[in-house]
Order: sequence, then structure tokens, then C-alpha cells
Amino acid sequence: MQDRLSQQINFIKEIDKIKYIQRKTKLINSDRHENDAEHSWHLAMMTIVLAEHSNTPIDILKVLKMVLIHDIVEIDTGDTFLFDTHKNHTNTQEETLAAKRIFGMLPTEQAEEFIAIWEEFEAGESNEAKFAKSMDRFEPVLQNTSNKGGTWAEFNVGYEKVHQKLSGIQKGSETIWNLTETMLKQSVEEGIL
Amino acid sequence: MQDRLSQQINFIKEIDKIKYIQRKTKLINSDRHENDAEHSWHLAMMTIVLAEHSNTPIDILKVLKMVLIHDIVEIDTGDTFLFDTHKNHTNTQEETLAAKRIFGMLPTEQAEEFIAIWEEFEAGESNEAKFAKSMDRFEPVLQNTSNKGGTWAEFNVGYEKVHQKLSGIQKGSETIWNLTETMLKQSVEEGIL
Repeated sequence: MQDRLSQQINFIKEIDKIKYIQRKTKLINSDRHENDAEHSWHLAMMTIVLAEHSNTPIDILKVLKMVLIHDIVEIDTGDTFLFDTHKNHTNTQEETLAAKRIFGMLPTEQAEEFIAIWEEFEAGESNEAKFAKSMDRFEPVLQNTSNKGGTWAEFNVGYEKVHQKLSGIQKGSETIWNLTETMLKQSVEEGIL
Repeated sequence: MQDRLSQQINFIKEIDKIKYIQRKTKLINSDRHENDAEHSWHLAMMTIVLAEHSNTPIDILKVLKMVLIHDIVEIDTGDTFLFDTHKNHTNTQEETLAAKRIFGMLPTEQAEEFIAIWEEFEAGESNEAKFAKSMDRFEPVLQNTSNKGGTWAEFNVGYEKVHQKLSGIQKGSETIWNLTETMLKQSVEEGIL
């Protein structure tokens, strides 16, 4: 029992490091970069508030677990930018190794549960994963439209590419995707995309 | 429908401000203060990992909602330090006003649900609130013992007061409280408390 608790405490201390993983996007109306802990918290709040807009009924607890842990592997691999042209943000070998190392600090059955949830998120095929990924894609829309184009402007990403990369949002929620399309069009009109 | 979604989006943007609310405690092995978004994310992870140690069965989804939203009122009121001698961290009038303003941005029934969950957390009487508060009290123990006493040392808070203030942990989990007592004793031996 004491060993089990020690494993859990060591994991909880280890994942503190996610607070240092900086994302490309910045906070709303801000010049300060967001970190992965803040990002994950925000996705969890968005999940609770927006769950009703999912295309299908979803297990909210499972989506929360997904968004809370989805970036923990970045403690080892660093953040991969959605519009990165060199590195594809898919389930790379590097990320799988990170998942095994970090989640592997937990007692076996918890480690297995976390790795399975993370793999389900990465695969993006279940209803929960689709909705979780919608939240992950939609948060930067709120940030970039508040920051004069944010990363779209900074990295010179055009409308077509943004529209294509974000279109996965509709797999999780047609409603949020409709709103996203409206916001992207407005951004083009305002000259920030 | 569009109005409802607009209310939800405005709330989601408003709560971004929690990322600027700085706590007294610092990250593990660090000189950098933690903010409320990072803190809330960490409590959510602790809840998922440590739920099995609750004294009673708990509704994990409800505890997650509690820890994710418990500090949102601080967007208006600022952080209240656990060992503050002037201001008591209880459900003050100021915090109630903040809850009404911020959660009140949501559609009515969501606003009511969030306020009810926040009040339940503050009251600390339900099994879920007891466990959520245990997590809230326990995180700084992990931080301070990693930071040469952290806020205990910085604000010169003695063992007796720390022990008394943290003893509420046992209402949520006897197991975590036993561990906390061990860690406090070790801290005294190491001269950091």
C-alpha cells in the first residue's frame, strides 16, 4: 500500500514539469505564452461547458481525463505546433516512449488506464476523442482572434491551411465548427488571417 | 441557441484571467510562483490518481468540477493565503459576488449548477467537498517540502499551525493525512518547518 501511494506521489510530482512546457499560442488579449497546464485546465473547463454541443452523447469524465493528460508526454518531447511543417503531430515513437516512461511511474493498472486513454485520444476515433480534439483545436481560435491573428499572423499561416487543419472540429461538434467557420471568415475580413 | 453558445464562449474567454492569479506557493523545486490555472489542473490530476484513498466512495466527476472551478472567484477577489492572519478563507460576501458575476455569464441552469458546486466545495460538508479540499491542502505540502519549506519558511509559519490548518485533510482521506503527518515530521527534522 505504501509503495502504491509512493508511486502515485512520485507521478504527481513529476507531472509538475508540464507547467514549464510553453505553447506557441498566447493568452487571450496577451503577449504571454500559454503553458500546457493552463491549456489543459482550459480544455477541461471548455469540455464541461460545451459538452452539450457534441455531435453524439459522450462520457464527460472520460473526455476530462483525455484533455487533462493529453499533453503530459510533452514533458519529454516538448510542444509540437499544429502548423509545424517538419514534424507531424501524430502518435510518434518519441511520444509513445514518453507515455510509457511518465505514466509508467504509476501503479500498473493506473499506468495502463492512462496510456489507453492517451492512445484513444491520439487515435481520435471514439466519440470522446473526437470531442476532446475539437476542444484542443478550438481554444487557439479564441486566443488568435483575441490577439490580432496570434500564431496565424506570427507564422504566416493562410486561411486555407487554418481552415483545413481546424476542420477536424466538426467531427466532435458541428455547432462549434459552424462558429469556428464564422470566426475564421470574420478574421479574414479584419485582415488578421 | 446562438445566444446560449455566445454566453458560453464569453464565459470561457473570461476565465482565461485565472492564469494571471498568482498563488503564494511555488512550483516543485522552483522559484516560480504557481498560478490558479496550473494549481487547478494539478488538483484535477491528483483527484484522478488518488481518488481510491478517499475515506468514502466519491463521485469523481463532481470532485473534478469542484477543483477545476474552485478558484475562479479569485479572478475578482485575488488569492487568499491559507495562513493569512487578516483575511479568513471562507465563503465571504466578496467571493459570493464574484461567483454570481462570473458564473452568471453562463446560461441560467449552467450558472446555477456551477454556483451550487462552488458553494458545496466551500461548505466542505459533502464527501466530494471533503476530498476536493484534501487535494487543495495537500498540493502545497508537496511543493513546500520540495522547496526547503516554501511558504512555511517564507512566512515563518510553525509546525503547530501548519499541522492544525492541514488537519482537514483527514476528513477527505485518512491515508493522505497519515502521509502528510509523516512529511511534516520529516520537515521538522530537516529544519525546514
